[in-house]
Amino acid sequence: MDILTVIGIVLGISAIFVGNYLDGGHIASLLNFPAIFIVLMGTFGAVFVQTSLVTMKRAMKLLSWVLFPPVIHLDKDIARIISWSITARQEGLLGLEALIEKEKNKFSQKGLQLLVDGSEPETIRIVLENDIQIFESRSNEAAKVFESMGGYSPTIGIIGAVIGLIHVMNNLADPSMLGAGIATAFVATIYGVAFANLLFLPCAAKIKSVSRSIVQYNEMILEGISAIAEGDNPRSIDLRLKSYLN
Amino acid sequence: MDILTVIGIVLGISAIFVGNYLDGGHIASLLNFPAIFIVLMGTFGAVFVQTSLVTMKRAMKLLSWVLFPPVIHLDKDIARIISWSITARQEGLLGLEALIEKEKNKFSQKGLQLLVDGSEPETIRIVLENDIQIFESRSNEAAKVFESMGGYSPTIGIIGAVIGLIHVMNNLADPSMLGAGIATAFVATIYGVAFANLLFLPCAAKIKSVSRSIVQYNEMILEGISAIAEGDNPRSIDLRLKSYLN
Amino acid sequence: MDILTVIGIVLGISAIFVGNYLDGGHIASLLNFPAIFIVLMGTFGAVFVQTSLVTMKRAMKLLSWVLFPPVIHLDKDIARIISWSITARQEGLLGLEALIEKEKNKFSQKGLQLLVDGSEPETIRIVLENDIQIFESRSNEAAKVFESMGGYSPTIGIIGAVIGLIHVMNNLADPSMLGAGIATAFVATIYGVAFANLLFLPCAAKIKSVSRSIVQYNEMILEGISAIAEGDNPRSIDLRLKSYLN
Amino acid sequence: MDILTVIGIVLGISAIFVGNYLDGGHIASLLNFPAIFIVLMGTFGAVFVQTSLVTMKRAMKLLSWVLFPPVIHLDKDIARIISWSITARQEGLLGLEALIEKEKNKFSQKGLQLLVDGSEPETIRIVLENDIQIFESRSNEAAKVFESMGGYSPTIGIIGAVIGLIHVMNNLADPSMLGAGIATAFVATIYGVAFANLLFLPCAAKIKSVSRSIVQYNEMILEGISAIAEGDNPRSIDLRLKSYLN
Amino acid sequence: MDILTVIGIVLGISAIFVGNYLDGGHIASLLNFPAIFIVLMGTFGAVFVQTSLVTMKRAMKLLSWVLFPPVIHLDKDIARIISWSITARQEGLLGLEALIEKEKNKFSQKGLQLLVDGSEPETIRIVLENDIQIFESRSNEAAKVFESMGGYSPTIGIIGAVIGLIHVMNNLADPSMLGAGIATAFVATIYGVAFANLLFLPCAAKIKSVSRSIVQYNEMILEGISAIAEGDNPRSIDLRLKSYLN
Repeated sequence: MDILTVIGIVLGISAIFVGNYLDGGHIASLLNFPAIFIVLMGTFGAVFVQTSLVTMKRAMKLLSWVLFPPVIHLDKDIARIISWSITARQEGLLGLEALIEKEKNKFSQKGLQLLVDGSEPETIRIVLENDIQIFESRSNEAAKVFESMGGYSPTIGIIGAVIGLIHVMNNLADPSMLGAGIATAFVATIYGVAFANLLFLPCAAKIKSVSRSIVQYNEMILEGISAIAEGDNPRSIDLRLKSYLN
Repeated sequence: MDILTVIGIVLGISAIFVGNYLDGGHIASLLNFPAIFIVLMGTFGAVFVQTSLVTMKRAMKLLSWVLFPPVIHLDKDIARIISWSITARQEGLLGLEALIEKEKNKFSQKGLQLLVDGSEPETIRIVLENDIQIFESRSNEAAKVFESMGGYSPTIGIIGAVIGLIHVMNNLADPSMLGAGIATAFVATIYGVAFANLLFLPCAAKIKSVSRSIVQYNEMILEGISAIAEGDNPRSIDLRLKSYLN
Repeated sequence: MDILTVIGIVLGISAIFVGNYLDGGHIASLLNFPAIFIVLMGTFGAVFVQTSLVTMKRAMKLLSWVLFPPVIHLDKDIARIISWSITARQEGLLGLEALIEKEKNKFSQKGLQLLVDGSEPETIRIVLENDIQIFESRSNEAAKVFESMGGYSPTIGIIGAVIGLIHVMNNLADPSMLGAGIATAFVATIYGVAFANLLFLPCAAKIKSVSRSIVQYNEMILEGISAIAEGDNPRSIDLRLKSYLN
Repeated sequence: MDILTVIGIVLGISAIFVGNYLDGGHIASLLNFPAIFIVLMGTFGAVFVQTSLVTMKRAMKLLSWVLFPPVIHLDKDIARIISWSITARQEGLLGLEALIEKEKNKFSQKGLQLLVDGSEPETIRIVLENDIQIFESRSNEAAKVFESMGGYSPTIGIIGAVIGLIHVMNNLADPSMLGAGIATAFVATIYGVAFANLLFLPCAAKIKSVSRSIVQYNEMILEGISAIAEGDNPRSIDLRLKSYLN
Repeated sequence: MDILTVIGIVLGISAIFVGNYLDGGHIASLLNFPAIFIVLMGTFGAVFVQTSLVTMKRAMKLLSWVLFPPVIHLDKDIARIISWSITARQEGLLGLEALIEKEKNKFSQKGLQLLVDGSEPETIRIVLENDIQIFESRSNEAAKVFESMGGYSPTIGIIGAVIGLIHVMNNLADPSMLGAGIATAFVATIYGVAFANLLFLPCAAKIKSVSRSIVQYNEMILEGISAIAEGDNPRSIDLRLKSYLN
C-alpha cells in the first residue's frame, strides 16, 4: 500500500475539518445534503455522458493503483534479463522456452515467446512497442475520466452556489431563509473545489504517473529482449539497461 | 444505444432540478427566457462565425455517436483478418477478391482491394495511413465544434449576467424590478455553465473518444492488411493483432 | 460568401441586443463611449506591441477568409490531377508544359513546373512540403493576431471595469455619480467578453480552419504530383487521392 | 525601429489614462505607490527565483528586439546565396573563401566556412541545424522570462488587492481609512493586469515572433548552403529558396 | 549559490510585508494560523495522494538546485573533449582508459567507458541518448511535484476563504466574530496565491530550467563522444561543439 497516498488523504480531509475547527466553526456548517447532491450527481452525469462503459470499467479498475501501485524492482529485473541473455548465448534462444511459463509478467512472457519463436529483431520491436503504446493510450484514457471529474466538479459547484443564491434572492423578504441558501451556495463551492483538488485530480495524476512508470519498465524489458534478439553480449546489455536504474 | 450516456444525461439534469428542489427552491426560479435566449443565440452565433458549413454538417452527423457509437468487436475482426491471411496463403491474393463485396466496413474493403490489386506493401501502408489521418483530423474538427460551444457558453452566460445586473443598477430606485434582473443575471450564469459542462463538453469528449477508438480499430486492420501484403504467416499476424485486445 | 458566418454574426449581435430588450433593458444602457475606448484601444495597443507590420498586414488580408473562404472542389481537382498523369504517360513529362500557364492555382503551377523541369521526385517533395509548411506557419501567425486580441480583450475589459469602480468609490458621497461609474464598469466587462467571444476568437478559429483545409488541399496536390513524378499509374493515383474526398 | 510597437505602447497607456479621463476620473486615483511596489517587487521576486543570471541577461539583451527587431531582406539574401552557388560552380568551393570575411551574418559565415573546409553535406546540415536549435531554445527561454512575468503579475495584483481589503476590514469603524484601502486594492488589480497584458505578455510574444523569423531566415540559409554543398544548380536552388518569399 | 534566486526570495517576501506596511497595515493582520494550516495541509495532502515516495524523495533532493544549481563551464568542457579526441587520435581509443577514473562527471565517464570498450558509434549514441531521456523525464516528474503544489495551493486557499466566510455568515448576529472570519477568509487567499506564485511555481520552473541546461550539456558531451567514436578530426569536433557556446 502506498503510505504517502494514505497520509495525503488524511492530510486533505483534516485540512478542511481541523482547519474549520481551528477557525472556530462548527462541523455542521460544512455538511449540506443538497450541495453534495448537486456536485456529485452533476459531476458523474457529465462524465457518464462522455465515457464509454469499457473505459469507465477500466477507470474503476485502475483506481486501485492509487493505493496499491504495482511494485517494480528494476535491479532484480535487469539481473533477470541478463540471466536470459546468458541462457540464450549458452543454449540458444530455444533454451528460453522453459522460462516462459515461470514468468509472471505478461509483457516479458510475450517477449520471451517472440524470442523462442525466432521472430526477427525488427518484428519483436514492432510488436512490443505496439503493446506498450496501446497500454499507454488506454490507461491515459482511464486517467482522463478522473481528470474530467476534476474539471467538471468545481464548475458544477458554482452551479450549486448560484442555485443557492437565487433561492436567497427570492426570499429577501424572509430573512429566516437567508442562512440555508447562503450555506448551500458556499458549501457547494467548497465541495466542488475540494473533490476536484483533494480527490479527483490527484487520483488522475497518480494513475498517469503509475502508468508512466509501467511504460518505462516495459520499455526496459523491450530494450533487453531486443538486445538478446540482436545477439548483444550480456555485458553490453547490462550497460544499456543500467540507464533505467537511479 | 450507450446506456451510460443516457444515465449521464438524466443525472446531469436531475442534479440541477432535484438539487434545486432539495434546497427548497421553486422550479420557476430556474426558468428564464431572456437568459436562455442570450446564452444559446450567443453560443451558436460565435460557433457559426468560425465553422464552415461542411464541418457543421459533419458535426451534426457525428453527434449521433454520443448516443449510438459504432459497435466494435475486436476479437471477431482479428479472427476475420486471420482467415483472410489463410485464404491469401492458400489461394493467393486474388483469392481475396470474392470477399471484397461481402465486406461491410469501407476501410477494410479498401484494404482488400489494394491487396487484390497487387499494390506494393509500402503503397498499401501509405494509402491506408493517409485515410486514417484524414478521418481523424476531420472528426476532431467536428468534435471541436462542440468543444468551442463549451468554451463560449459560460462566457456568454457572464454577458447575460452582466446585462441583467446593469438592468438592476438602472432601476435601483424601483425595487420591484430588482428580482427579475438578478434572476436573469444568475440564471444566465447557470445556463452558460450547465450547457457547457453537462452537454457541450461531454459531447465533444465523447465524439473524440469514439473517433480515437475507430482510429485504433482501423490501425489494427491496417496492421493486418500490411502483414498479409508482406506475406507474414497467420500465427505471427495473430500475435501482432492480439496487442489490440484487452 | 460563407452564409453560416453571416448568420453567426447576426445571431451574436442579436443575442446581446434582443436579449437585453427581452429582459426589459434599454439599448442606451449598453452603449458607453469610455468603456469601448478603453477596451478597443487597450486590445489594439497590446496586439500592436507584439506584432510586426508584415504579420499585421497579412492578418488583415486573411481576415477576408472569414466571410469569403477560398472555394475548394476536391473531386474536380482529383480529376484534373488524373488527367495530368494520363498526359504524362502519353506525352512524357514535357507534355505538361502547355498546362502550366493555364493553371490558376500557384501551388499546382509550381508543382507542374518542377515536373516539367525533370526534378527528382525527392526534390519535388521537399520543395513542395517546404512551401506548405511556410504557408501554414505564416497563416497561423496571422490567426494568432486575432487569438491574442481574444485573449487580451476580456482582461482589458476588467481594467475598464475597475477604473469605473474606483471612480465610484471616490464619489461615494455623491450618489448622482454612482450610476455612470457602475455602467462603465459593467459595460466594459461586456465589451471585453463580447468582442473576444463573438468576434476575435471565432475569426481566429475560422482563419485557422480555412488554413488547415488549404494545407490539406495542397497536400493532396503534392501527393498527386509526387505520384506522377514516381511514374505511378493513373488508377493507383486515383486510389491514393480518393482518401481526401468525403 | 518598429513603428507599430511604438504605436501599440502609446495606445495601451492612453487606453487607461484617456479612458479614465473620459469616464470623468482623476489621474491621481490611478497612482498608488504601495500597489505598484507590491506588484513590481512580487513579480520580479517570483521571476528572479526561477531564472538563472545567464538567462536573465539574455532576456534583457533580447528585450531590444521589441523596438528594434533585426531587419531581414529575404529577396536580397536569396540573390546572395544564388551568387555563392554560381561562384562555387565556376571557381570551386574554395572560391567562396574570399567571401567569408565580408559576410556580416555569423550564421552564414559559419556555413561558408563549412563549405570552404570541404565538409560533407550531411555534416554541414547537422552542424547548422544544431546551431539553429540551440539559438531557438535559448531565445524561447529568454521570452519565457517575460511570459512568466505576465503570468505572475495579475495574481500578485490580487495579493495586493486582498492586502488592501484586509486593511479596510480592520478599519471598518474608521470610515476615513476606507478610501485609501479600497484604492490600493483596486489599483493593485489594474497594475497587475495592465503590466501583464499591455507590457510583459506582448513583449514575450514579440521576442518569440522575432526569434521565429530569425529561425526561418537561418533555415533558408541552411537550405541554400546545403544545396550548394550537394552541388545543385543555381536554378534549382532559386526554386527551393523562393518558398521563403511571400 | 544562485544570488539572483536569493534576491528573488527576499523581493517576494518584502513585496508582501513591506507593501502591507507602506499601505498602513499591521503585520499581525497577515498572520493567521487556521488559514496557513488549511492551505499547507491541503496542498501537501493533494500532492501526497498523487506522488510516489520515490518521486517525492527525488523532488526534495532536486530542490537544492533552486539555490545551488550545478555549475557548468561549457568552454572548459569543449576543450576537454577536444583533448580526448587528440588522445584518441594519437594513442587509439584505449589511450582514454586512464582518463575514466579522473573524470568526475558520471555521464562523461560512461561515455568514455563506452569508447574504451570499443562499442559501435550507433550503440554509444543509443545508450547515452537513453540516459539523457530517462534523466530528463525523471527530473521533470520531480519538478511537476512543485508545479502541482502551485496548482493546488490557490484553490485550497479559496476553500479556506469560503470556510471563513461560512463562519461569518453563521455569526451575522454577533458582529464581534465578523473580523476573525473575514481575516481567515482573505488571508487564506493570500497564502494560497503567494505560496504558489512566490515559491512553488518559481521553484518548479527553476528545477525544469536547470534540468534543461544539464540535458543540453549532456547532449554536447554525447555529440563529442559520438564524434570521437566516428573518428572525426579535432578541428571538425571543435566546430560542432562551438554551437553550444554563446
